[in-house]
Amino acid sequence: MTLSLPAEFGLIGRYFAPLAGPEGLGLRDDAALFTPPAGRELVITKDAMVAGVHFIGDEPADLIARKLLRSNLSDLAAMGATPLHYLLALAVSRGTDEAWFAAFAKGLAQDQAHFNITLLGGDTVSTTGPLCVSATLIGHVTPGHALRRTGACVGDGLYVTGTIGDAALGLRALRGDIIDADGYLVSRYRLPQPRLGLALHGIAHAAMDISDGLLQDLGHLCRASALGARIDAALVPVSIPGQIETCLTGGDDYELLLAVPPARHVDLQKACAGLRITKIGEFVAGERITVCDIEGAPMTFSRAGWSH
Amino acid sequence: MTLSLPAEFGLIGRYFAPLAGPEGLGLRDDAALFTPPAGRELVITKDAMVAGVHFIGDEPADLIARKLLRSNLSDLAAMGATPLHYLLALAVSRGTDEAWFAAFAKGLAQDQAHFNITLLGGDTVSTTGPLCVSATLIGHVTPGHALRRTGACVGDGLYVTGTIGDAALGLRALRGDIIDADGYLVSRYRLPQPRLGLALHGIAHAAMDISDGLLQDLGHLCRASALGARIDAALVPVSIPGQIETCLTGGDDYELLLAVPPARHVDLQKACAGLRITKIGEFVAGERITVCDIEGAPMTFSRAGWSH
Repeated sequence: MTLSLPAEFGLIGRYFAPLAGPEGLGLRDDAALFTPPAGRELVITKDAMVAGVHFIGDEPADLIARKLLRSNLSDLAAMGATPLHYLLALAVSRGTDEAWFAAFAKGLAQDQAHFNITLLGGDTVSTTGPLCVSATLIGHVTPGHALRRTGACVGDGLYVTGTIGDAALGLRALRGDIIDADGYLVSRYRLPQPRLGLALHGIAHAAMDISDGLLQDLGHLCRASALGARIDAALVPVSIPGQIETCLTGGDDYELLLAVPPARHVDLQKACAGLRITKIGEFVAGERITVCDIEGAPMTFSRAGWSH
Repeated sequence: MTLSLPAEFGLIGRYFAPLAGPEGLGLRDDAALFTPPAGRELVITKDAMVAGVHFIGDEPADLIARKLLRSNLSDLAAMGATPLHYLLALAVSRGTDEAWFAAFAKGLAQDQAHFNITLLGGDTVSTTGPLCVSATLIGHVTPGHALRRTGACVGDGLYVTGTIGDAALGLRALRGDIIDADGYLVSRYRLPQPRLGLALHGIAHAAMDISDGLLQDLGHLCRASALGARIDAALVPVSIPGQIETCLTGGDDYELLLAVPPARHVDLQKACAGLRITKIGEFVAGERITVCDIEGAPMTFSRAGWSH
């Protein structure tokens, strides 16, 4: 751990060391020491977020911390993994005051309790640019049970969890384009809900999380499985009607996209008990993704997805 | 893995996917899948670097990549661990051209071959600020054999590997303050040599790497071991005489600092065969770190260490 910023040793002791489990060695050593769970595969992911790109920048720091953890936890969810630990790297402006760190750590504490994870270590450095944060998340999975993007078959149903496009609508609400009276859409932009804990092994042929827009991410899954897909636009679960392009191409939903054979439809519903799960189309031969309107005619959009 | 920047999918395929081992799943899935080595503890560290803070910014991209890996590998070396895998997060300006990524990946390839590590995954995002990069390094160690900062004893010799202060002198050379005719000091600033592979378990009571200046980092080790230390300034191995304050307080050396009992002095020399290892003082009771001049008088410095 490289230490920096004038008061950083104190900040780490006050705000981050209390978040470390025993494996973090009090954040006072060169690295963390971690005994992996016996007989499990580890699942590891690392996502970064930049102020002005992945969040607006004036959010309360606890929400930035939680979105960072949750965007990474969503990747673990998409692999069917159980989260264990995380590491952080924060590049912050030298002028950042201690209250910001206190709030950031409070957000971490809240979500690490919620998701049962502990901090292993990391780094805090200074930058002259916007806030830049990254997290590495470590989870585990029964060997061979990880959900992959490969493996979807022709005829598999194309399912999504939750509602699609809420985060993009929330961002538009923050910009004043859309009314969001109860703040639900903004909360979906600021605080993703990683879909952890679904027992999808043996049910889903393929899975991934939707972070850069449904159409773009479906493209990745289709390429990984060497397939195409057909979406019925009218079936896509959205919070505001009439915004289908925003909903299909907007990023930051962190819902799951699943390929599930028809015979496992009921098992899927059971595995997702309590969570909305919707069939929006199916996987087809070829490499084309088609979105059909209510009359079955193909729709066109100006872009496929979101670019961070 | 969140994907971003307009051409990023292509960049990942061309430059980063070839660096991934089978555990990285071709960098085409949501996370990496990794079977930890049986019966080993994992050692995990995550350091970040920012242009203008940890490097000047106009270095060839391959050197930036290698310094990033090596600063993290040094943390593994300080724990006595064997490196395995790494993940990356890059926050780069949208205007960054493809040649920069090609050079960055070339540096990664060179060092991952040298240190026998492979890429597991990561993230590339855009920023309006300076380049900000972080890496997570994973290594392994025989359970219970990790070198810690705790455990130094009164009377232990205080040893350092290599020469101290070269990186700070190199930075001064880059600024025109010092002549560095053969470029050796600049190379020490730009390309640290992580001291991996030393069999120090059972020899060193405590170890850490020197990244923020010898005096400041020794302070961390002393606090972790509840001790003080005395340094003979004349014994500190330096490349340029007469620069003792720069050498004791400058960062980026990535040499090891060791606490070794007198009875293990010969074993230490054997373990470090081929690498310069120097006793520069000893650990003492109390909590004070004293630097003595050639006549035994305590010296004072304007700062303890380097702040990134």
